[in-house]
Amino acid sequence: MKFVTYRNGKENRLAVVDGDQIVDINRAVPEVPADVRAALADGVDLVAAGRRALDSTAGRRPLAGAALAPVVPEPGKTVCLGLNYYDHAAESGREKPVYPWFFLRGTTSLLAHGEASPRPRVSEKFDYEAELAVVIGKRARHVRREDALDYVFGYACFNDISVRDYQKRTPQWTIGKNFDRTGALGPVLVSADELPAGGVGLSIQSRLNGQVMQDANTKDMIWDVAETIALLTECLTLEPGDVIAMGTPAGVGQSRTPPVWMKAGDTIEVEIEGVGLLVNTIEDEQP
Amino acid sequence: MKFVTYRNGKENRLAVVDGDQIVDINRAVPEVPADVRAALADGVDLVAAGRRALDSTAGRRPLAGAALAPVVPEPGKTVCLGLNYYDHAAESGREKPVYPWFFLRGTTSLLAHGEASPRPRVSEKFDYEAELAVVIGKRARHVRREDALDYVFGYACFNDISVRDYQKRTPQWTIGKNFDRTGALGPVLVSADELPAGGVGLSIQSRLNGQVMQDANTKDMIWDVAETIALLTECLTLEPGDVIAMGTPAGVGQSRTPPVWMKAGDTIEVEIEGVGLLVNTIEDEQP
Repeated sequence: MKFVTYRNGKENRLAVVDGDQIVDINRAVPEVPADVRAALADGVDLVAAGRRALDSTAGRRPLAGAALAPVVPEPGKTVCLGLNYYDHAAESGREKPVYPWFFLRGTTSLLAHGEASPRPRVSEKFDYEAELAVVIGKRARHVRREDALDYVFGYACFNDISVRDYQKRTPQWTIGKNFDRTGALGPVLVSADELPAGGVGLSIQSRLNGQVMQDANTKDMIWDVAETIALLTECLTLEPGDVIAMGTPAGVGQSRTPPVWMKAGDTIEVEIEGVGLLVNTIEDEQP
Repeated sequence: MKFVTYRNGKENRLAVVDGDQIVDINRAVPEVPADVRAALADGVDLVAAGRRALDSTAGRRPLAGAALAPVVPEPGKTVCLGLNYYDHAAESGREKPVYPWFFLRGTTSLLAHGEASPRPRVSEKFDYEAELAVVIGKRARHVRREDALDYVFGYACFNDISVRDYQKRTPQWTIGKNFDRTGALGPVLVSADELPAGGVGLSIQSRLNGQVMQDANTKDMIWDVAETIALLTECLTLEPGDVIAMGTPAGVGQSRTPPVWMKAGDTIEVEIEGVGLLVNTIEDEQP
């Protein structure tokens, strides 16, 4: 089942996708919160609620033209992995890492499908990174690898747009990963039952103005989804609605000769087999 | 004026401190949200609201015995600076940094005054870091240094408790700074009008079981509060209720000979002149 969050004025609404329509879950099933994080935190069975919504004639609208929000508009945490594909570690001049390079993104850095990402005033080194995102469904702490996938609600496409010079100003990458509206998350949140366990074996691509820039498979991650959840929950609690961005394969703009930087007017796409097609344009940051 | 957030069952309530009592602002002034982040986001003049609450006989309770929450229970972002005092950079074997080493903490890592911080099962390298925390009052983006302090609502004590081996497993410190309940924030949020501009010139100490471990002054920060806000808002939007933890001076446990690690039964205090005294105990993580 595929879910979206769409913007209705200043309000975010959770809906299920039905072909070329979306069905507002809260309108059809009023006891379900309109916020996906709140719904997951309440323990709502969203797939069951989605099925009930699909039977409803209320709360329908065309998918085309709906203004989408990030599939989780305000995650409690967005944890990102750096260097989680060998080939990307190599192109970045790094050894195979011995532990994931975790960093966090704040909500102000998130962006929805269809929105423009502002290339910052202060940098031209604006790069794309196609990633598989995981959305946590249940509170998880000290979870064993073999149980870890029970805590995944679903998957989405992620573009970990990076401001490379700020990322490298110090050893801490965080600031270069937290410019406003640079972490695209969408368009849809696909429930885990629709995909292979752990989202393994899916082709993943980025395309810049139609040209394939990254072309890989999620099976090539160094740490898979289950291992990542096990490692993270050794340290911290993953909460419903938390997002994990699983790192990017080779082919990013900074590693090309000459480097490729995104600029105003560009279209950047991230496509993951069975998960979706995430499309964003680039604009100059407004003065 | 001094504010606290206290726990009333599962609910957090915002109150103003009146000597040995606290006054629930929302009870006294019902139009003010009970959540400090929401109140700031709504543009509430909390000092004015606090004054009205102080005139009220309603919603009073003893400060002693109130179960406090972090002064902002769920910040949108908690941005931390590493190596923001020369002497701590030096004791950590680092050059003077050329740009702040920013990283983020998630809300699951926060802890209230008076609560026990769990020393993780997976590590004994559990260290303290006394820091000045800044709470943002207004949305800030591309703010000049000379205007930056207009965006500060107030200050609090912070203990950036760090799991040193995890912090150093990769160049990204984030995971070692995000163990559950390791970022103590409190006890009170002091409005900026009560302190020198930018919180400059305040003595800052940590004490472990009564012994002074760090003893410094906030004037010795490499990047002061105004510069930090200017640098951050070059990149991202600071929102009302966002927290900035301004880094720690020399004297942390890992830099001592032999190293000092916190263990169950310890009491760690952070005291900042005019800002408050933040006290936490250490317990072993529950099995």
